[in-house]
Amino acid sequence: MPLTKRCIAEFIGTFWLVLGGCGSAVFAAGFPYAAAPDGASNFFGLGFLGVSLAFGLTVLTMAYAIGHISGCHLNPAVSFGLWAGKRFPGSELLPYIIAQVLGATLAGGLIFLVANGREGFALTGSNPLATNGFGVHSPGGYALVACFIAEVVFTFMFLMIILGATDRRAPQGFAPIAIGMALTLIHLISIPITNTSVNPARSTGVALFAGVELISQLWLFWLAPILGAILAGFLYNSVFETSIIEERVREHV
Amino acid sequence: MPLTKRCIAEFIGTFWLVLGGCGSAVFAAGFPYAAAPDGASNFFGLGFLGVSLAFGLTVLTMAYAIGHISGCHLNPAVSFGLWAGKRFPGSELLPYIIAQVLGATLAGGLIFLVANGREGFALTGSNPLATNGFGVHSPGGYALVACFIAEVVFTFMFLMIILGATDRRAPQGFAPIAIGMALTLIHLISIPITNTSVNPARSTGVALFAGVELISQLWLFWLAPILGAILAGFLYNSVFETSIIEERVREHV
Amino acid sequence: MPLTKRCIAEFIGTFWLVLGGCGSAVFAAGFPYAAAPDGASNFFGLGFLGVSLAFGLTVLTMAYAIGHISGCHLNPAVSFGLWAGKRFPGSELLPYIIAQVLGATLAGGLIFLVANGREGFALTGSNPLATNGFGVHSPGGYALVACFIAEVVFTFMFLMIILGATDRRAPQGFAPIAIGMALTLIHLISIPITNTSVNPARSTGVALFAGVELISQLWLFWLAPILGAILAGFLYNSVFETSIIEERVREHV
Amino acid sequence: MPLTKRCIAEFIGTFWLVLGGCGSAVFAAGFPYAAAPDGASNFFGLGFLGVSLAFGLTVLTMAYAIGHISGCHLNPAVSFGLWAGKRFPGSELLPYIIAQVLGATLAGGLIFLVANGREGFALTGSNPLATNGFGVHSPGGYALVACFIAEVVFTFMFLMIILGATDRRAPQGFAPIAIGMALTLIHLISIPITNTSVNPARSTGVALFAGVELISQLWLFWLAPILGAILAGFLYNSVFETSIIEERVREHV
Repeated sequence: MPLTKRCIAEFIGTFWLVLGGCGSAVFAAGFPYAAAPDGASNFFGLGFLGVSLAFGLTVLTMAYAIGHISGCHLNPAVSFGLWAGKRFPGSELLPYIIAQVLGATLAGGLIFLVANGREGFALTGSNPLATNGFGVHSPGGYALVACFIAEVVFTFMFLMIILGATDRRAPQGFAPIAIGMALTLIHLISIPITNTSVNPARSTGVALFAGVELISQLWLFWLAPILGAILAGFLYNSVFETSIIEERVREHV
Repeated sequence: MPLTKRCIAEFIGTFWLVLGGCGSAVFAAGFPYAAAPDGASNFFGLGFLGVSLAFGLTVLTMAYAIGHISGCHLNPAVSFGLWAGKRFPGSELLPYIIAQVLGATLAGGLIFLVANGREGFALTGSNPLATNGFGVHSPGGYALVACFIAEVVFTFMFLMIILGATDRRAPQGFAPIAIGMALTLIHLISIPITNTSVNPARSTGVALFAGVELISQLWLFWLAPILGAILAGFLYNSVFETSIIEERVREHV
Repeated sequence: MPLTKRCIAEFIGTFWLVLGGCGSAVFAAGFPYAAAPDGASNFFGLGFLGVSLAFGLTVLTMAYAIGHISGCHLNPAVSFGLWAGKRFPGSELLPYIIAQVLGATLAGGLIFLVANGREGFALTGSNPLATNGFGVHSPGGYALVACFIAEVVFTFMFLMIILGATDRRAPQGFAPIAIGMALTLIHLISIPITNTSVNPARSTGVALFAGVELISQLWLFWLAPILGAILAGFLYNSVFETSIIEERVREHV
Repeated sequence: MPLTKRCIAEFIGTFWLVLGGCGSAVFAAGFPYAAAPDGASNFFGLGFLGVSLAFGLTVLTMAYAIGHISGCHLNPAVSFGLWAGKRFPGSELLPYIIAQVLGATLAGGLIFLVANGREGFALTGSNPLATNGFGVHSPGGYALVACFIAEVVFTFMFLMIILGATDRRAPQGFAPIAIGMALTLIHLISIPITNTSVNPARSTGVALFAGVELISQLWLFWLAPILGAILAGFLYNSVFETSIIEERVREHV
């Protein structure tokens, strides 16, 4: 498949990741939008569990839909990690990442547009439009260092799972389930910490519509995930990768 | 399999989609049916998350059960989208759609019948019997334009996933998981907007029992999903489809 | 595998179905067990969604664990439905059903035993020990007729999915996911109606420990599920089944 | 793969199990961390359902990621059970268990570190850092005997599922789903009882940071799970295992 078509697939896929993940958070996490006067018996909102599931399902569904076209990275950190793990050529990093950020930004704009179709919508709270943040913009008030560590560790583990589940020795066809559910799991743990990024494109796509303060925290959500991803790529490749030659030798012993 | 038998399968499958999706919303989303006097500690209801899961599982289960019989469309928009993507003959559109609408209507009637088996049941709220709507019949009060955009975009993405996951290059056997979970995901995002249709048969099957006002909004839930689906069919076919000849040529280069 | 070993597997599997499904309801559905004095911010309970998932996962896990041993029916209605669909010999109905009821009863007793390990436990509410019921023992107060219809229809659809997903034309290996998630889906819809049976063994296993009143309603949860299951077996076999000879003929046309 | 590399995989995997399972409980189960003054309409926390899902997904994701490297035990009880079932050499029990406990302990330390990044964090409640316990340290106040029985029975069933789903007669590639969802199911039932262990490494990894009182209860979470696991290993091997020779003979009858 030519690079252009693969970039179109990455564009559509990252659009879906942000529309599904951040959209579910913006539209449905805290429904009804105002507390009922008679208490809480009518809370239909998704909470963190539903939003976590939504993020994971964007990846699961897209990996089956476009995995055979572009590999379905949907995430600059994933592209960097696959490159560090010697599964993706460095020459294609830039076009992939541009497509991912553009798709994420279209989704951020669409969420903003549809949200404005409801009277009373406003950019409020610590994480408007489901943006990522630390310190005062951490949903649970976690400090910068804790947030940085979390993003490094969770992206590191995300890539370990991606590299392992797509290893040719792993069961074939199941990687989209493993990888999608890994993203769900990461959200189940870390939404309270940074609202969960592990994906610079996702962070950027919504921050652009949420104001200067959120944009000024974007650096962490580029730096930490890419750092964690590259570490995982090097580790998996140097420790667990086996060349086909080694395997053949072992079989004949 | 002869067309008649395939239409029976579509009838049963769409019956299940509406019974499972709308039924879970009507019977279980907001249980207990009246707020407890002592607050909310006893809210057992499914909320949007449970209803979203139910809709997706109707498709997942049916796709494994009747996929080999009828292809398991269960949705006029899906049939149109597959036709636009050159996967389904136009001559079979009408019988499939009739079977789908009849199955959905039987389910709508059954939900109404069983719901009436409970003292105190009434057609109340903005979306009685889990009907779809916009404006005053949007669960979250979203305006007509926002609702139209949402239905077009979500059905477009639903068909992209269906076309991609059933592509012969995608892992075989997993499409029901991808497609079912795509429907769950779409509900996780958009129940607050239109109560989520992306399926004209599902909208029609319950609206018929919910009164004139809801029926008068049905046009949007035929127009927007079919429009989105046809767009996806044309796009996937023209951009991502590869003929077997092209593939063979590439292999020999 | 000899019949005795297959019956041991059915015994263990049905034990697991009741322990997992009814146990999650008894131990965890409404945690904490008493409403907190300060309102509801601390409701950790599973609600209907979690219990529905638990029931489905008992079947999913056991179908992968013992499907290759006994076929993993875990349910007299399933055994009857497979017999009606010509997939299971009538001569083995009785030993299978005995093993299922014994396993369910052991689980009911174990739940009762462990529940008594908590001070303050008592058999209260309309459905103690997660029993099934109608009328005053329907969680949502549904009348007998509505409950009967629901149990027939849901068991009918459950068997349609079982027969379809295990059809030799369906994708191989996925049936446990389809069947387990079908049971989850059925619970998502119908817990408020009958507390969801579709399984006479499950109903019996807990009713025996819950008192005469619940036992006196057991007839419905034997009659309705088996009726629905047999209908599905006959329908699937007469409409959708294709003999291998027919298939070969079609291929050569 | 050499033993050292397999132990590194077990270390990473058990790190992930505790980070994901216990981390989701510590960071996200009861969010927001203080009850809102205006009631409960804003409870976004995972509750028991979300934590149960998180534990299961740690195993599902890791089994696809490292199953081909180390077999993905992540649990001393699993290693013992596989040994009892004649699937794992006794000589490797000790190195596997050491790697598992070290990985769990690193995760416990990391959770403690990140949690301290939030102002107001403290080791409070009956189960700080998601530790396991009985009696006064049982979330629901269950007595020692009930807790012991529960841990034996649930680990027994966990191993039955592991042994069955990885049997060569079971569908290939699906075991990680069955085993991961089994752990989710076990949590859905038993968090109120012991906060769910079935895994001595998981219990140890967090107890070490939670104080002497919790450490003093660790004996139960080593003894009961390993006992249940060994029973399952012996039972599966003696009742359900079939040698390849037996199978061949049967085929030729």
